[in-house]
Amino acid sequence: MTPEDLSSYGIGDGISEVIATTQSSSGKPNAAPVGIINRGELLIRLYKSRTLSNVLETMKIAANICADAMIFAITALGDIDDEKFTHFRGFPVLKDADAWILFRCHMRERAANFFVFNLEPIAMHANRKRVMAVNRGFNAVIEAAILATRAKNTEKSVKMMEHYKRIVDKCGGRREKDAMNFVISAFRRICDER
Amino acid sequence: MTPEDLSSYGIGDGISEVIATTQSSSGKPNAAPVGIINRGELLIRLYKSRTLSNVLETMKIAANICADAMIFAITALGDIDDEKFTHFRGFPVLKDADAWILFRCHMRERAANFFVFNLEPIAMHANRKRVMAVNRGFNAVIEAAILATRAKNTEKSVKMMEHYKRIVDKCGGRREKDAMNFVISAFRRICDER
Repeated sequence: MTPEDLSSYGIGDGISEVIATTQSSSGKPNAAPVGIINRGELLIRLYKSRTLSNVLETMKIAANICADAMIFAITALGDIDDEKFTHFRGFPVLKDADAWILFRCHMRERAANFFVFNLEPIAMHANRKRVMAVNRGFNAVIEAAILATRAKNTEKSVKMMEHYKRIVDKCGGRREKDAMNFVISAFRRICDER
Repeated sequence: MTPEDLSSYGIGDGISEVIATTQSSSGKPNAAPVGIINRGELLIRLYKSRTLSNVLETMKIAANICADAMIFAITALGDIDDEKFTHFRGFPVLKDADAWILFRCHMRERAANFFVFNLEPIAMHANRKRVMAVNRGFNAVIEAAILATRAKNTEKSVKMMEHYKRIVDKCGGRREKDAMNFVISAFRRICDER
């Protein structure tokens, strides 16, 4: 697969933030945001998570290209409903994804707290192509969701979360505002639990 | 024009960051990033700038939907080459835009330091549709360019610029890294001049 082919399915140069769908050996699906690293070769670095345990069981992962702030927020900090999945040859992908690429994973590195896999594309599909302007609110939700998953109840984290909320309040649409509320609730809950 | 029509040309709910192309009454083109506000009605708020003086002269503006970090960086902090423009019925738009919408502007509010205009779509064109994953490096360039245009040589601004640079170094492709270098050079120059 050439860089142009990958790019036509949404994976450009650098790290692409996508929703990874995986399943356990018993077929239970999971969705979570991951970064697909594209620097000459395709890689993924996975820390301890359901995504990692599923990949170790099946050696497959699908990268779903999504343009919905809410799906990033929910999959980063909780679980999506089973009805959001559809299946391609028995493997879960997201119904609402703009596109997905199914990869076979090849173990490349096993470190103390993460694994690195090489990714080999084995199938792909585009549901829709769009023209889409930059929405700073959407982008702020992505950053806020990442911050929340690493939640530390420090002054710096709280200030950054407020910074992202101001951008969403100013620039976001309805979907970004709902997603930001979800992220902030999760952030507070996680901070309280720690 | 319905919200669905606007959305199919890239303008969603909330504020869309686009490259505005305008021209003076003598026909000199200009390009600069602006936010198109879409909250039931379409608005633009313009502060003192060449974009504003051109709009006051011609009462027209084109919103160019672009997915290139470098075009945001250059137009925010400098000038693009004339060869980047093409013309639609005598009005400048960007050759490389994914899409553009040409608007007639109607004065709505004149405040001490800004003007607000209602936007009436009069023509539109899509050059290409894409599947595009989120690239945090791209998003960080947009935030860094906005920060640079408001450059203050404060500890907070410098720290935020370093934060954006770390994201671009980690997640950006070649284009985002070049754009971030451009933004940082401009930021330092503006800070030095003040």
